[in-house]
Amino acid sequence: MELLKQMCNIFAPAGDEGKMKSFILDYVNTHKKEWKAEPKIIEGDGFQDCIILVFGKPTTAIFAHMDSIAFTVKYDRELVKVGGPRIKHNYPLWGEDSQGPIECEMSVPEGSKKAYYKFDREIDRGTQLVFKSDFRTSDDFVQSCYLDNRLGCYNALKVAETLENGIICFSCYEETGGGSVGYLGKYIYETYGVRQALISDITWITDGVKHGKGVAISMRDRGIPRRSYLNKIIALAKESNIPFQLEVEDAGGSDGNQLQASPYPFDWCFIGAAEDNVHTPDEKVHKNDIQAMTDLYKYLMEKL
Amino acid sequence: MELLKQMCNIFAPAGDEGKMKSFILDYVNTHKKEWKAEPKIIEGDGFQDCIILVFGKPTTAIFAHMDSIAFTVKYDRELVKVGGPRIKHNYPLWGEDSQGPIECEMSVPEGSKKAYYKFDREIDRGTQLVFKSDFRTSDDFVQSCYLDNRLGCYNALKVAETLENGIICFSCYEETGGGSVGYLGKYIYETYGVRQALISDITWITDGVKHGKGVAISMRDRGIPRRSYLNKIIALAKESNIPFQLEVEDAGGSDGNQLQASPYPFDWCFIGAAEDNVHTPDEKVHKNDIQAMTDLYKYLMEKL
Amino acid sequence: MELLKQMCNIFAPAGDEGKMKSFILDYVNTHKKEWKAEPKIIEGDGFQDCIILVFGKPTTAIFAHMDSIAFTVKYDRELVKVGGPRIKHNYPLWGEDSQGPIECEMSVPEGSKKAYYKFDREIDRGTQLVFKSDFRTSDDFVQSCYLDNRLGCYNALKVAETLENGIICFSCYEETGGGSVGYLGKYIYETYGVRQALISDITWITDGVKHGKGVAISMRDRGIPRRSYLNKIIALAKESNIPFQLEVEDAGGSDGNQLQASPYPFDWCFIGAAEDNVHTPDEKVHKNDIQAMTDLYKYLMEKL
Repeated sequence: MELLKQMCNIFAPAGDEGKMKSFILDYVNTHKKEWKAEPKIIEGDGFQDCIILVFGKPTTAIFAHMDSIAFTVKYDRELVKVGGPRIKHNYPLWGEDSQGPIECEMSVPEGSKKAYYKFDREIDRGTQLVFKSDFRTSDDFVQSCYLDNRLGCYNALKVAETLENGIICFSCYEETGGGSVGYLGKYIYETYGVRQALISDITWITDGVKHGKGVAISMRDRGIPRRSYLNKIIALAKESNIPFQLEVEDAGGSDGNQLQASPYPFDWCFIGAAEDNVHTPDEKVHKNDIQAMTDLYKYLMEKL
Repeated sequence: MELLKQMCNIFAPAGDEGKMKSFILDYVNTHKKEWKAEPKIIEGDGFQDCIILVFGKPTTAIFAHMDSIAFTVKYDRELVKVGGPRIKHNYPLWGEDSQGPIECEMSVPEGSKKAYYKFDREIDRGTQLVFKSDFRTSDDFVQSCYLDNRLGCYNALKVAETLENGIICFSCYEETGGGSVGYLGKYIYETYGVRQALISDITWITDGVKHGKGVAISMRDRGIPRRSYLNKIIALAKESNIPFQLEVEDAGGSDGNQLQASPYPFDWCFIGAAEDNVHTPDEKVHKNDIQAMTDLYKYLMEKL
Repeated sequence: MELLKQMCNIFAPAGDEGKMKSFILDYVNTHKKEWKAEPKIIEGDGFQDCIILVFGKPTTAIFAHMDSIAFTVKYDRELVKVGGPRIKHNYPLWGEDSQGPIECEMSVPEGSKKAYYKFDREIDRGTQLVFKSDFRTSDDFVQSCYLDNRLGCYNALKVAETLENGIICFSCYEETGGGSVGYLGKYIYETYGVRQALISDITWITDGVKHGKGVAISMRDRGIPRRSYLNKIIALAKESNIPFQLEVEDAGGSDGNQLQASPYPFDWCFIGAAEDNVHTPDEKVHKNDIQAMTDLYKYLMEKL
């Protein structure tokens, strides 16, 4: 879990994913020689802060978004949301501006729906602040801010260890409506003919999806994957004997919706462990669900 | 109307259009020899469950979506919407799950905005249920669920009988925000240079659009077509002497919005008969408006 | 300001930008010989009513939308909005229908959220009406409807005078959610490899952005530009000594959002003077902010 802990501590609000990109690139370059297959690494001009790893002869791509929810400093100490973080008095925040590093707390006046920062000086307008990670593990659980979606990235890197044929896309901007999946999809479809995707992201504990019952395969959220692709995945999941749960929601979205909206004929399915305390500093996931997530991805990337 | 009746009975909720695709392909292959021109049929890999028919040297494309609104079985017998169906106690539903065919009814507790199913066993999580078609005709009207948009598909197949130059695209996912029109538009623009579209879909009876007064040409809904293209269509419609009505709405959308959002320079216009009891099992359209719809499409596909 | 005054008087609601296109094309053809570099003009088939000007070897593109908010005549004298114009009793409107030119006023019954027109005859269904321009200048201010975004177009034409390398895109449909930026972006990215954009548009006077304090560089609105690009722009703006203000909002959008949503890896930043009385006939901008806007664009187009 050391890798996950490190990633939860990296500053990478949506739109400013450079540090996560560097971390992942370093990690890949350090470890790829130990992996079953060495990937081709595609990044740089024309890919903004995204990374594509291509293993062997790919037929399916994993998408894991690197960005997190955050807050932007507006005027008069007000904070506005980047994506959909929860607000609560005293949530710990950090960042950096022209005057140096910042560690501060959120202030939410009683009855207010607005958030402010408490700090001993004014913070530069437009500065991004993220939750401070308090990474906790127990026998069963891991807990921190930003398991959504550092855990999705962690999962992709674990799958990479044994992946022989497949693509991993580390994407940006997911928390704010997307903007990178279009060109990532375009590239892998046009270059490799790949049009099957798995969305490596974290979902919600609900009445139908519980801690420790296995990775969630989302049958739908706001977006609805093509049923024939979904059925193929569920059949493989059953065959694998890896624990999984079926999710049915009518809200929420992911990089899957961005693929759906792109002018390329992608099939996609969201598969991920579920967390509670969504979009807070206390996101919590069962360790067995993480294991099941990685196991199922390995199985599917081989069979799809 | 036998063809329309058959199509209203086909199970094809958004995301699961395979059965409509098969039906239309069979129909086209059976009847194309009787048509004025035989189309090239484009489908399969890279087109998901969509079909493109290309006749002669095309300049304009008809888009007709094959999918319907529906419901997904969530947890504890709850139903969540696929698109925007109305809910009402006792609406008849059907579908199929791992235990076999399902015919059941909707339950809406008094005062509730949630819908459930009533059935003598539990239905598999994630199962799609659609309205059961009670297809009714009178001298003037046809009535059933899913006239939106089996009637748009029916219209396209009627136009196909005499079409010499043009394209017909049968699309997917329209009821849930799209996802196929992007790649359909890309293909026909890049392959045939086609950038004019007519949206063969069903609109609403309103204060301005009445039963039996002709096919509706939509001057706008949530989306706004380019005025120069709209003017050309209205001028041709006047010249044709086919009965039509002009629609002006500020809500509602169609595959036209998806073409507008695509990175291809499509002109589009929604032209379709109007129904009342929208998105219920009792959608109702005047037969003369259906005839006017087909007549106008034939005229426009020749002149545009 | 004569040029700006002329442009505020041109009828060009979203979807019907033909007259603005003609005006700008005429202006460019008349003046391009006096400019430092003569641009290549790209328009016509495949570009709808848009215009692209290409100067030298471009690395950055300016996007200025030509369309305006407006109203469409619905049924029973009701007006529905094109984009988000404000409504108020007696606002002056103009347009044209089959019976000739129209000058009329808006009627908003007390307590109503609906708008109607007052005119001595019925106006054709679907007719577009725009605000009548009452163009006013004082020592410090310019005031009219449609400074958003005739001022953005004006700025682009002023920058054109000395531009040696760069692209200017005059776009359509911005006020109604876009539809041209996708293919404009596609063209300039595929043809020239350009993936840096500046959005020449008008923003709002707020608690953080004041009249006469310089052009606003938007650090975010509903859309969030990539931080590394934003930082580069702010650093150049500081270096330039041209007055500017930093904006941070969580609502509002622009052609930047459309570029973000396109399947091309564009960096974009909204830079524009701020107005009050947004989306009314009385939009008001400080002349110094206009000057700063043009100065900063000239500087950035050279340095980016």
